[in-house]
Amino acid sequence: MKQLWFFNQINNDLKRVEQELEKFILTDSPILRESAVHLFAAGGKRLRPAFTLLAGRFYDYKKEKLFPVAIALELIHMATLVHDDVVDASMMRRGWPTVKAKWGNIVSIQTGNYLLAKSLKMISQINHPEVSRILAEVSVEMCRGEIQQIRTSYDMRQNLKQYYYRIKRKTAMLINASCRLGAIVTGASKRQIWALGAYGHALGMAFQIVDDVLDVTAEVQELGKPVGSDLRHGIMTLPVIVALERLPQRKILEDIIVKKDKTEADIAQAIHLMIETGAVKESMYWADLYIKKAKKYMEEMPNVPARKALIDLAEFVGARKF
Amino acid sequence: MKQLWFFNQINNDLKRVEQELEKFILTDSPILRESAVHLFAAGGKRLRPAFTLLAGRFYDYKKEKLFPVAIALELIHMATLVHDDVVDASMMRRGWPTVKAKWGNIVSIQTGNYLLAKSLKMISQINHPEVSRILAEVSVEMCRGEIQQIRTSYDMRQNLKQYYYRIKRKTAMLINASCRLGAIVTGASKRQIWALGAYGHALGMAFQIVDDVLDVTAEVQELGKPVGSDLRHGIMTLPVIVALERLPQRKILEDIIVKKDKTEADIAQAIHLMIETGAVKESMYWADLYIKKAKKYMEEMPNVPARKALIDLAEFVGARKF
Repeated sequence: MKQLWFFNQINNDLKRVEQELEKFILTDSPILRESAVHLFAAGGKRLRPAFTLLAGRFYDYKKEKLFPVAIALELIHMATLVHDDVVDASMMRRGWPTVKAKWGNIVSIQTGNYLLAKSLKMISQINHPEVSRILAEVSVEMCRGEIQQIRTSYDMRQNLKQYYYRIKRKTAMLINASCRLGAIVTGASKRQIWALGAYGHALGMAFQIVDDVLDVTAEVQELGKPVGSDLRHGIMTLPVIVALERLPQRKILEDIIVKKDKTEADIAQAIHLMIETGAVKESMYWADLYIKKAKKYMEEMPNVPARKALIDLAEFVGARKF
Repeated sequence: MKQLWFFNQINNDLKRVEQELEKFILTDSPILRESAVHLFAAGGKRLRPAFTLLAGRFYDYKKEKLFPVAIALELIHMATLVHDDVVDASMMRRGWPTVKAKWGNIVSIQTGNYLLAKSLKMISQINHPEVSRILAEVSVEMCRGEIQQIRTSYDMRQNLKQYYYRIKRKTAMLINASCRLGAIVTGASKRQIWALGAYGHALGMAFQIVDDVLDVTAEVQELGKPVGSDLRHGIMTLPVIVALERLPQRKILEDIIVKKDKTEADIAQAIHLMIETGAVKESMYWADLYIKKAKKYMEEMPNVPARKALIDLAEFVGARKF
């Protein structure tokens, strides 16, 4: 796990969440153990647990209330990743081969289902109606987002509204829930639950836009997966949609996107067009606006160290290269 | 939905569960709506809701408590079916093309996840800690069973213990839960919750054994899917395991099972061996024992019409041809 300095105040607890998570997904089934442990070892920033813990820092910071929520959130996130890798046929993630790459689609589906079932188990142990309700709601919306992505792949008529609908469900809602739940289980006021949730939403939107931009501009070693993977799958991200709008002859880019077997030269040309038209720059502009919004919501919050951490975290998301 | 006479006392309510289920899975996402409605229209016996309602008949039969549980159970069951069809590459089920056959693996994964998320939502609405705990527990175990099936496919050393481990998780636990939950939410005593659960377990085991036998002996039009599909996927069911034990030269059958591309003649020969060795007969003997056990547990229960229905239902499972 990367050490990010704004996690300093929760680093020890984040490590304990990590340990408890590992213990919780252990199973006597050899394949499930291998695949789940592989996924676990491949790591990740554990952003969602971090948001929950930081949100809890404003109030009555009770680990026994925060940890189970953090674990449930990360389980849902991990399950989504395993299933997404099947859907996107991804072989690499975070510099590691995916579960799909190592064990194939069938094991991936079951590993994802196992992690979902474990999250359901954790949620039932938490035994807090609002926590259950929010996580259930988010899970349903995440599916809607995924399905919309499948449906609109290779669809050139796609607009910004559809893009925002999708990334809200794909990313922002779970981060919103991570912040809100940390506040809810530690006894925050309605107003501050709302502010933390709004922060999480804006940050999640920015996070996904940056992710989509990095898919175009990053280097493989930074990204931990091949560059241009959205492009290869016909997923219309913000830089693509903007570039199509700006190109005098959009057909050049359209023709590349619709090709099912794109060459490396195709990918390179598409990326070139997205940079040339200023679409990458415009995308980052929108990401920055969301970052600004996220930081703005923090003005509502009391001035404790967690507030500074959340503000810095937002800035980090805007500037991240991986 | 087939009209089964022992459902008479709950038929109207079963229809209402069906309607509410349909309403609950409706969504504004066109693909999800199509695939979920297709799956829904393909029907099924709605056995799990029926068990819940019948179990509730012994006590304070409150529809507002029983319906949500029945719907959550059927959603979990439906989700499992969609994912199983991907895992088993099944193109037909109940005489209908599967979601996988019509929309492919990716939509199937997401349809299954959507149904799971909806069940999570229903469970959160039920807001009953024991209901959540039981359904979470069963979901985890169902995944373990599925994974064990993947792991032991084409494994000739498989024994009866592994087979029973698997079918318990694949089928019996959810039927056990269906019966128990119907009793729990209507205020049954501990002893009778146990008896209804034990009935559900025994009946579920019998149900799966009969299913595995029908995969060998049924006609396509009765089964609604190709005969021998377990065989084709190297899934070692009871008739296969028993036949391997009984054959003087088990290699004949082993050689067929390990073949990845089995001809129709291979399948026919394997089926012939399972009948010839008496393996099919022995399997039905074990199914019948479970049926007897299930009926025996009903002796614990008060003599209300639901008891007769559950006993007849058990007999029907033992004699079913589809």
